[in-house]
Amino acid sequence: MDTHILPVELEKAYRLLNHGPTVLVSASHGGIDNVMAAAWACALDFAPPKLTVVLDRASYTRRLIEQGGTFAIQIPTAAQLDLTLAVGSISGGEVKDKLARCGVELFRAEGAAQQPLVAGCSAWLACRLIPEPHNQQTYDLFIGEVVGAWADSRVFRNGHWLFEQTDPQWRSLHHVAGGHFYAIGEAMTGSNPEEV
Amino acid sequence: MDTHILPVELEKAYRLLNHGPTVLVSASHGGIDNVMAAAWACALDFAPPKLTVVLDRASYTRRLIEQGGTFAIQIPTAAQLDLTLAVGSISGGEVKDKLARCGVELFRAEGAAQQPLVAGCSAWLACRLIPEPHNQQTYDLFIGEVVGAWADSRVFRNGHWLFEQTDPQWRSLHHVAGGHFYAIGEAMTGSNPEEV
Repeated sequence: MDTHILPVELEKAYRLLNHGPTVLVSASHGGIDNVMAAAWACALDFAPPKLTVVLDRASYTRRLIEQGGTFAIQIPTAAQLDLTLAVGSISGGEVKDKLARCGVELFRAEGAAQQPLVAGCSAWLACRLIPEPHNQQTYDLFIGEVVGAWADSRVFRNGHWLFEQTDPQWRSLHHVAGGHFYAIGEAMTGSNPEEV
Repeated sequence: MDTHILPVELEKAYRLLNHGPTVLVSASHGGIDNVMAAAWACALDFAPPKLTVVLDRASYTRRLIEQGGTFAIQIPTAAQLDLTLAVGSISGGEVKDKLARCGVELFRAEGAAQQPLVAGCSAWLACRLIPEPHNQQTYDLFIGEVVGAWADSRVFRNGHWLFEQTDPQWRSLHHVAGGHFYAIGEAMTGSNPEEV
């Protein structure tokens, strides 16, 4: 594993998702890996950390998650814009060499052998599916418990994103529609007279 | 209503949330209005548009939503950073003049008389609660169907955010933790050789 990649304390894992980035969803089952893009992923709880992700019923990755019960959510960088669009546009169910064609390299992290992780991202959340058949069938809504989290220490360190201190190529992507994204921007800290 | 505020077609309402901004949640019941901040709001469906939002069980706004069955999600601007922090820090259940103290002005839009909307935001989504008691009790997770959407045409027009063309004070806020936010940043459009 790249030596820049460090574990993130589980109680701070929500911070990886809190600012609303577009994510990549990866899963593996029966020796088959796949990766898709998703804009609709969101933190759900702090401790144990949980998250939600909406997975279209046509997606091959969803099938792998339903079968294998595990998945990973990772945060792609501005440098991975084209990769993110590509994995969001073609289906691993139809294109057998999808990952190679999209330039995706996978790796595994210690303690999360079942979750394939996409190299080059800024952060990774390995999850186990919390089965909720009604949500999955009615809303395409999946809930995961985060069982391991890692980040590239060049952009997230000691529980904090460092977007303002690093190369803009590390910034997270925020999809609007049709391949149009915004990168995350400037840091802002509010002052709140009510806060104790 | 401010003449800059225009309706957004319901099938494009997801675009208001797709880039993952921190939102304000407002509700009214029995003549009482309240507003809170939430980082965990997410689009759930395109048509009819739906969304999810996580509401802590201690929050007064949640109680109003459970009782009244309606709420609004709105996107605060960088100019509203302190307001956003303030409504996220004190409870309307404890501080009776919370909204005045936080500088919140409310208005109503045509066709959404039940949902109080916060003036000065960039976009608004009026919702009706889709009751899902298991999600609400187990996960603090609420699902809403969007029944009306509006945006300030100075920052969202014809289905598109215009952050890159307007004053930075209009940018959306993306909370990380403890009052630390990022504003949304630069526009990026990917090229995808696989796309048809």
